[in-house]
Amino acid sequence: MMNHNIKLTLQYDGTGFNGWQVQAKHKDARTVQGVLEAAVSKINGSKTSVTGAGRTDSGVHALGQVANFFTEKDLPVSKWPEAINSLLPPDVIVLNAEKKPEEFHARLNAVGKTYKYYIINSKYPDIFIRNHTSHIPHKLDIDKVFYAAKKIEGTHNFKSFCASGSSVKHFERNVFDVSLELKGDILVFSITADGFLYKMVRMIVGTLIEIGKEKKSPEWISEILETEGREKGGPTAPARGLYLEKVYYNSVS
Amino acid sequence: MMNHNIKLTLQYDGTGFNGWQVQAKHKDARTVQGVLEAAVSKINGSKTSVTGAGRTDSGVHALGQVANFFTEKDLPVSKWPEAINSLLPPDVIVLNAEKKPEEFHARLNAVGKTYKYYIINSKYPDIFIRNHTSHIPHKLDIDKVFYAAKKIEGTHNFKSFCASGSSVKHFERNVFDVSLELKGDILVFSITADGFLYKMVRMIVGTLIEIGKEKKSPEWISEILETEGREKGGPTAPARGLYLEKVYYNSVS
Repeated sequence: MMNHNIKLTLQYDGTGFNGWQVQAKHKDARTVQGVLEAAVSKINGSKTSVTGAGRTDSGVHALGQVANFFTEKDLPVSKWPEAINSLLPPDVIVLNAEKKPEEFHARLNAVGKTYKYYIINSKYPDIFIRNHTSHIPHKLDIDKVFYAAKKIEGTHNFKSFCASGSSVKHFERNVFDVSLELKGDILVFSITADGFLYKMVRMIVGTLIEIGKEKKSPEWISEILETEGREKGGPTAPARGLYLEKVYYNSVS
Repeated sequence: MMNHNIKLTLQYDGTGFNGWQVQAKHKDARTVQGVLEAAVSKINGSKTSVTGAGRTDSGVHALGQVANFFTEKDLPVSKWPEAINSLLPPDVIVLNAEKKPEEFHARLNAVGKTYKYYIINSKYPDIFIRNHTSHIPHKLDIDKVFYAAKKIEGTHNFKSFCASGSSVKHFERNVFDVSLELKGDILVFSITADGFLYKMVRMIVGTLIEIGKEKKSPEWISEILETEGREKGGPTAPARGLYLEKVYYNSVS
C-alpha cells in the first residue's frame, strides 16, 4: 500500500494546552500533539505520530503551525481537514492539508519561522482577550521599543535569550526581520528567523518592555547580545501573548 | 453614618459564569453578581447586595453592565474600581464608579439598553473568539438580513420573541434602533429598546439567520410580530454571541 505524507497547517488557542509536545513523563497532560494524534490515529485505524514544526510552550498559541504524518488511507487530500476537525476539540483547527514527498519533515525541513507577540498597553486589561495578549498598564515609550527592536535583526549569538532547560549547543541565529505595529493600544511585535532558542521571543520581548518602561536604554539590547550569554536581559514575557504565525519551507519541500 | 449609593459600570466575559444572577436554588453556581457581592462585602466588612441593570443569561457577555450597591465606607468614589478589581477574578472588571442619589436603582431606573450580537460568517470558526461570537458557516444573504432587521424597529408586541420561563405579563416593547454592520466576515447586530423580554435578542437573531439562509422571506419577521405570540420565529441563537453593550438612564438618575 502507498504511504502518503500529509502536511497540515493548523491553529490553536494555547490557553487550555500544556504546549505542543506529548510529555512522556506526564501522560495525562493535555497537549496539541496529543489531541491531533488521537484524531489522526482514529481515522487511520492505527497509532499515528504527528510531527510539528515548532514545539510551542504551554499557553503559547499558533496561527500557522505546520505538522506532518503518514497514512495509508486513500482519502482525497482536500478531505483531511474536515475529517480531522470533526474529531478535534474547539480550541484547535486544521485549516489546510497538502500531499508532500515521503522525505518531507515538518520540523527538520523548516527554513524559518515567524512569531508574533501581542501586548495591550492600557490602564485596564481587555478581559475578552486576556488569554491572548499580555497586559502592560505601565506607559511604554514606543519609539524606544521600535528603535531597540531593530537592533535584533541580523546574525547574533542569542545565548542571553535562551532559557535554561534547553539541550542546544549552538546559539547563533539569523533574524531576518523584526517589525512592530501599534494599532490603538495593541502593540504587535513580529520576528522572523531561521530558528529560535528556548523562550527566545519571550525573553526578547521582556527585554524590550524594560526599555519601553525606560528602566534601560535602547542600547542595552546590543550590549546584551555582545556578551554572548554572560549578561541576561529582562524578565521572560508571559506565554499568553505569543503566537507561532508561520513556518517557511524551501519550494522543493 | 452616611450611606453612599455607588453606581458601577462593568464588563464580563460570560463564558465561565452561570449568568448574572445569584441562584437561590444553586448556591454553588458561579455568577457575576456572586463574585461582585463577595468583593464588595469584603471591602464593606458586611454582607452587601449588588443590583444589576440586566440579568444576563449563562454565557452572555457584558461590555457596559451597570450595577449599584450601598456602602458606609468613606472611600473616594474614584478608588472603588481598583479596590473591587483587586478582589475580582480575571473575567470580570469594574471600569467606572460614580456616586448617585440614594433613590438610584440600576434596574428600575434604566430607561433603555443596547445589546449587540456578533456572528462570524466564515467556512471555519475563528478559534480565538469561539466563546465570543456565534459561528455560521452557511452563506448568508446579508441584504435580506439588513432589510428584515429594520422591520423590528418601533413599538410591537414581542410575545413571539419571549422564551417560556418568564413571569412577564406585558409583551409590548419599543425598539428605538436596530443596526447591522459587516466588518470582514464579522456581522454585528445592534438593538436598542426600552426593555427586553427573556431571550428576546437571541430569538430575533435566530429568526434573522433563517432569513439570511433564505429559508424564509424578509417579510416573515413582520408576519410573526403581527400574530402577537401565536407564531414563533427561528431557533434561539447561542448565548456566546450576545453582549449587553450599554444601559441608559435619565440625566436625573
